[in-house]
Amino acid sequence: MSASRALREAVCEANIELFRRGLARFTFGNASAVDREQGLIVIKPSGVAYDKLTPAMMVVTDMQGRVVEGTMRPSSDLPTHAALFRAFKRIGGIVHTHSMFATVFAQARLEIPCLGTTHADYFHGTIPCTKPLTKAEIAKDYELNTGTAIVRRFKGLDPATMPAVLVANHASFCWGPDVTAATDNASYLEEVATMAHHTRTLDPKAKPVAAALLDKHFLRKHGRDAYYGQTK
Amino acid sequence: MSASRALREAVCEANIELFRRGLARFTFGNASAVDREQGLIVIKPSGVAYDKLTPAMMVVTDMQGRVVEGTMRPSSDLPTHAALFRAFKRIGGIVHTHSMFATVFAQARLEIPCLGTTHADYFHGTIPCTKPLTKAEIAKDYELNTGTAIVRRFKGLDPATMPAVLVANHASFCWGPDVTAATDNASYLEEVATMAHHTRTLDPKAKPVAAALLDKHFLRKHGRDAYYGQTK
Amino acid sequence: MSASRALREAVCEANIELFRRGLARFTFGNASAVDREQGLIVIKPSGVAYDKLTPAMMVVTDMQGRVVEGTMRPSSDLPTHAALFRAFKRIGGIVHTHSMFATVFAQARLEIPCLGTTHADYFHGTIPCTKPLTKAEIAKDYELNTGTAIVRRFKGLDPATMPAVLVANHASFCWGPDVTAATDNASYLEEVATMAHHTRTLDPKAKPVAAALLDKHFLRKHGRDAYYGQTK
Amino acid sequence: MSASRALREAVCEANIELFRRGLARFTFGNASAVDREQGLIVIKPSGVAYDKLTPAMMVVTDMQGRVVEGTMRPSSDLPTHAALFRAFKRIGGIVHTHSMFATVFAQARLEIPCLGTTHADYFHGTIPCTKPLTKAEIAKDYELNTGTAIVRRFKGLDPATMPAVLVANHASFCWGPDVTAATDNASYLEEVATMAHHTRTLDPKAKPVAAALLDKHFLRKHGRDAYYGQTK
Repeated sequence: MSASRALREAVCEANIELFRRGLARFTFGNASAVDREQGLIVIKPSGVAYDKLTPAMMVVTDMQGRVVEGTMRPSSDLPTHAALFRAFKRIGGIVHTHSMFATVFAQARLEIPCLGTTHADYFHGTIPCTKPLTKAEIAKDYELNTGTAIVRRFKGLDPATMPAVLVANHASFCWGPDVTAATDNASYLEEVATMAHHTRTLDPKAKPVAAALLDKHFLRKHGRDAYYGQTK
Repeated sequence: MSASRALREAVCEANIELFRRGLARFTFGNASAVDREQGLIVIKPSGVAYDKLTPAMMVVTDMQGRVVEGTMRPSSDLPTHAALFRAFKRIGGIVHTHSMFATVFAQARLEIPCLGTTHADYFHGTIPCTKPLTKAEIAKDYELNTGTAIVRRFKGLDPATMPAVLVANHASFCWGPDVTAATDNASYLEEVATMAHHTRTLDPKAKPVAAALLDKHFLRKHGRDAYYGQTK
Repeated sequence: MSASRALREAVCEANIELFRRGLARFTFGNASAVDREQGLIVIKPSGVAYDKLTPAMMVVTDMQGRVVEGTMRPSSDLPTHAALFRAFKRIGGIVHTHSMFATVFAQARLEIPCLGTTHADYFHGTIPCTKPLTKAEIAKDYELNTGTAIVRRFKGLDPATMPAVLVANHASFCWGPDVTAATDNASYLEEVATMAHHTRTLDPKAKPVAAALLDKHFLRKHGRDAYYGQTK
Repeated sequence: MSASRALREAVCEANIELFRRGLARFTFGNASAVDREQGLIVIKPSGVAYDKLTPAMMVVTDMQGRVVEGTMRPSSDLPTHAALFRAFKRIGGIVHTHSMFATVFAQARLEIPCLGTTHADYFHGTIPCTKPLTKAEIAKDYELNTGTAIVRRFKGLDPATMPAVLVANHASFCWGPDVTAATDNASYLEEVATMAHHTRTLDPKAKPVAAALLDKHFLRKHGRDAYYGQTK
């Protein structure tokens, strides 16, 4: 049982890309991917600067987050990633960043309403925010409980059409079919959060778009009837 | 009937320039130009990254937006571009972007008042915002109806002296005598929207400039009595 | 009577530097210098992109703004520059920019209070804003009247210790002993205006610093008893 | 008694790094380090541009701030640095910057509450702000009194777990075990101040995180039970 070279490279590249795009500064962020067939997770090692990362440094664990390959300690957020991979069966990659405006909404414990078509193009509705953890949830298995809080918040939501979440007082997690798509979703989240912030400071009462406009934009890019982009 | 190489190159270059200037991130934007003599529109293909674009990829359509040259699917916003080219007889190029602060005003459904001479130098008055589309207008021919909503909003306005519009809950369209001028107008719009946003957050009651100052600045740069720049 | 090569180069370089520092985007800005002995002003030509400027293109005028050297049209703001050079006898250079936050204060017609030592290090008090021009002042000799409005606002102020002004609904003018110092003052103005904007959006009631702190910081950098920097 | 080459290089590099990271613009910032064994402080010379700095230019003083090596005048803020090195026995480096949002909080005389885990990862509680100096404290020994005001504010606080302070109406000082760590803390301070500013403009009533979350994040990165990063 061994993670493929391609998956290690994709995860390493995604981590570096978070830094390049300014989504993760210093060491504030991590990316992971899952190999569903083998039941393996590949994730960034903890606290290593992005410009030092190599595919060989990636840590490989089983679906419970137990290290099976690699000599370095995995990202401390690994239990959150693993919980999401276990609960959201169809996602292939996850990224966690403290990108500025997504984090600002998380700090304010405010969900991000859909205020325009840029948002509707990528997120099918309000971007949710978890409830704060209890003292007991923080004291023991904090990172696992963060994952559980996300999964709990997604009751009734589809991770395939809502590929992002804000963790109260913390920051964001994004995901997608693979780790590259997860990285792109983190970019879109930050763009949309920035627009929402500036819209709300311009007009605190700005209203969400009509459901019809939300559906139109999301569905012209995603799903069976999409007509954006080139036919594959 | 065939689009000239020069026009394809100008449109390709304008699309890339939107990206270079930070007006269009990811694939959020598109530029087009019209050949009035032949009745041809040249536009970006849908969903292609800016760093992959070549003049040969540009899609050519007739004035109704029917593809006449090119193997790729045109930008999904094509029907909006075509509607504007049909209605505004003297414009030669159009750009659509989700640039940050212009989009923020569009999301807040607020027009941009002329708060200073930077605005007056390029836009002769308040930059208009369309009314939201109805559910029926969204359901069928959405992109065409977006164009129609813009044309409706321009009743009584001159596209030659007001080369930009905000589409409610969406973003902006800009135009000009050619696609390069349209690109510059998108830059000026974003600059002016940014200034207006910061002015309004500093002082929510900041007042528009006097009509005399608006006219003075617009007319020293544009029209018969302009005295800015070098004589041609 | 001829402007020195050194002065042409300094003015050309200052104009380009405004662009490099992001103080003047597109063609939104101009720099000039004066040769007091010969009574000559050297200024940017109107509407020329910064990356095309050469020392030979600089336009030379007398103290009334009449062109004496050069084939290009001078900056349309020349009459403002000339009025300031005539009234403020000890300044050697002027720059005009539409830099973002200085312009935002000008658009809001708000003076910039001294909220911290960064401001006090360079501007000895509140940065003043002119009164709006009357309709008649706009209609005829607009640029000259802009200069006159600045000079009027400086009654009781010393241009040597207050090297910047906001022009209501327009933007800023800065000056200094030479055009390089004027450029630096435009940078400091933008930095200080940005800080003031963010301070006021954080706390609309933030108070100016005590007079003692203002004096301390300004005078440790400027004048007879300065002790900042290296002895010359 | 002579400062080591390594310490001079570290201080020179830290000063340049403040500029590279955008924390100190123009000449707005300085870094220093202490050699506790020899009782020597190494600090930037006053008013020298960052791109001209060399290790040989660094000024060396005793713990009272009396120059013992170097021909240049030390940073005018030296007495503040020396006061901090004398009072905080375990710190090895200090940086002073006017970085934008930390300065904005200092100008508003507002402490920075812990609004999220990015803050909790590096600062164990509210980032403190000094009281304004009295007129007498400004008039004589201003820079020394700035240091005294910081030390006074730290009564009951531990400089090891709170490596930053805001000086009212001025800007920030940060420190750490060495000058490189101090530089990193200045980066984290600016990031956290930026997030706090945007959080408060989005929701002026945003609440600090629970004490349990603050402790969890700070202690997973710092101290005996830390589990972030690689084991040394």
